[in-house]
Amino acid sequence: MDTVVWRDGKVRLIDQTRLPGELVLLDIDDLEVLAEAIEVLRVRGAPAIGVTAAYGIALAARLSPARGLPALLADLRAARDRLARTRPTAVNLFWALDRMMHLAETADGTPDALRAKLLAEAEAVRAEDLASCRAIGRYGAELLPGGARILTHCNAGALATAGYGTALGVVRAAAGQGKVAMVYADETRPLLQGARLTAWEMVAEGIPVTLLTDNMAGHVMRQGLITCVVTGADRIAANGDAANKIGTYGVAVLAHHHGIPMYIAAPRSTFDFSLPDGAHIPIEERRPDEVRGFGGVATAPAGASVYNPAFDVTPHELITAIITDRGVFGPPYVESLQALARDEPGPGE
Amino acid sequence: MDTVVWRDGKVRLIDQTRLPGELVLLDIDDLEVLAEAIEVLRVRGAPAIGVTAAYGIALAARLSPARGLPALLADLRAARDRLARTRPTAVNLFWALDRMMHLAETADGTPDALRAKLLAEAEAVRAEDLASCRAIGRYGAELLPGGARILTHCNAGALATAGYGTALGVVRAAAGQGKVAMVYADETRPLLQGARLTAWEMVAEGIPVTLLTDNMAGHVMRQGLITCVVTGADRIAANGDAANKIGTYGVAVLAHHHGIPMYIAAPRSTFDFSLPDGAHIPIEERRPDEVRGFGGVATAPAGASVYNPAFDVTPHELITAIITDRGVFGPPYVESLQALARDEPGPGE
Repeated sequence: MDTVVWRDGKVRLIDQTRLPGELVLLDIDDLEVLAEAIEVLRVRGAPAIGVTAAYGIALAARLSPARGLPALLADLRAARDRLARTRPTAVNLFWALDRMMHLAETADGTPDALRAKLLAEAEAVRAEDLASCRAIGRYGAELLPGGARILTHCNAGALATAGYGTALGVVRAAAGQGKVAMVYADETRPLLQGARLTAWEMVAEGIPVTLLTDNMAGHVMRQGLITCVVTGADRIAANGDAANKIGTYGVAVLAHHHGIPMYIAAPRSTFDFSLPDGAHIPIEERRPDEVRGFGGVATAPAGASVYNPAFDVTPHELITAIITDRGVFGPPYVESLQALARDEPGPGE
Repeated sequence: MDTVVWRDGKVRLIDQTRLPGELVLLDIDDLEVLAEAIEVLRVRGAPAIGVTAAYGIALAARLSPARGLPALLADLRAARDRLARTRPTAVNLFWALDRMMHLAETADGTPDALRAKLLAEAEAVRAEDLASCRAIGRYGAELLPGGARILTHCNAGALATAGYGTALGVVRAAAGQGKVAMVYADETRPLLQGARLTAWEMVAEGIPVTLLTDNMAGHVMRQGLITCVVTGADRIAANGDAANKIGTYGVAVLAHHHGIPMYIAAPRSTFDFSLPDGAHIPIEERRPDEVRGFGGVATAPAGASVYNPAFDVTPHELITAIITDRGVFGPPYVESLQALARDEPGPGE
């Protein structure tokens, strides 16, 4: 499944807002359309946003009529600023933009040479993300017991990355080893990425999946149906605190209460070592109508106020281990993650 | 707000499946239509189901062409059996049916005298429920501090009872004393009673309400936004274990983790002292398409399995106090509730 690729000078995305009803591919050659696609979650998931942003800079370079480096750089900076305004929480966005802009700012050849370099760099970001997901899958599958019954939240799957997935990369790798008895997918309101995307990915691959509303997680844990929880992350601070889709924190508290391991799966590019802890992670707040209804159907009275944070922070004390593309890290994270901090994102194994 | 009343020989219900879009009143004079109304949640909430079932027996008596007591009794038993098959978890249903049938089985006058007695008894069930809710409200409001920020789950409001509500009875009484700063309403998937009904009741009364998706409860607690949790119950066992709408258990675990009081509000008729603990409470499982879709829109692939328990059980260890129409009961419940067990349901204060 190609979540986001470069095709004939355009960025090709699966429009995830149309899933699971229709598989619609968008070929985008307009930076504003690309930025809007990130904002309305046509493409989402921290690693996939990073790859899309990288292609966005390559696209801006291609579209720029500039004949000299300074003019091209000015266009790229404008594109960077627009893309950086799309979604505040996933650090992969800023990591990818910084990586692309570092290349641009230090370039000294012709504009066309830079255009080619930027496209090659974006392709590298994508290829590395795929390799990272496979490495996460291998490391994670080792942790899982046979007959695993895995609860996941939101979609940290192929659709949240360049392909394969982080949390669902672990599931895929473990399923390949015959270790997965059942995936329990929280539907993940308000935008239902679990119901629409995770269930769709699992059904497509023949991995057994049971869909739950978010408020069933405690009940299924109490019944002994869950072996472990595996989710993705959008940003992880230096002490292991992890921001992820709203509801992840509640699932982590429930897992802790029931003595169930809580694993976070994320590539190196999701770590933000400039932040000492999760209190510093900006949390995106989205439009009230996402909560007041769904799919165009209003379900709540217009007079009700709404709170709609898109993410929450799971404190490191509730995380059993963080599964990365560079290995598995456990507590105390403030120490164990130091080795990862020195291991810059980029080509891993 | 009259959730369920007797009007001109018919049972008049608010069709709660049409809220908050439209306020539709149904005048029902067919027992099968009434049973279906309970099954599809046109009327729901343990106390309201009890009142509706009582009127159902009165309706069956009115509709029966029987000229002798034995024939009338046979018709009433058939009606009782049909109503008893509607929903298994709320004990108020069985309590109300038993109360009505006890009257019928011990009657010795004319069929018309019994018809009149049954209607009077159903009216008493309704009047007592209203009085119970007001008593719950008074007792509960005493527990709440000023400036309370109350999280509630599902709808234990006027619409879940003959009127006024259990959990929302506490909210109404506390609001009347100027004690309520904010009600946080979990939307309560899959059928959204929180978004559709609780938010609607609060907006209608001018009590400040903020709507949340179910998976936000942990995040708002961690931010210090919640003073206490108040929910209703559908059946409470002798040891205080309480069945309520799916998700209540998860909220209780989260409240416990954050040191937030968890109150259950319910009338005496919600207690089932024949059950030693919550493991014996039957849990209704409902149709998968409630979870696979949202307001008539399919949101998940048809190939995904679904688990759809309508209720869960909150163990008594997680319940700070149970607010009843006979006072407030705290742990150890197996002892404190003995006094309540001796205090039969019926006219209270």
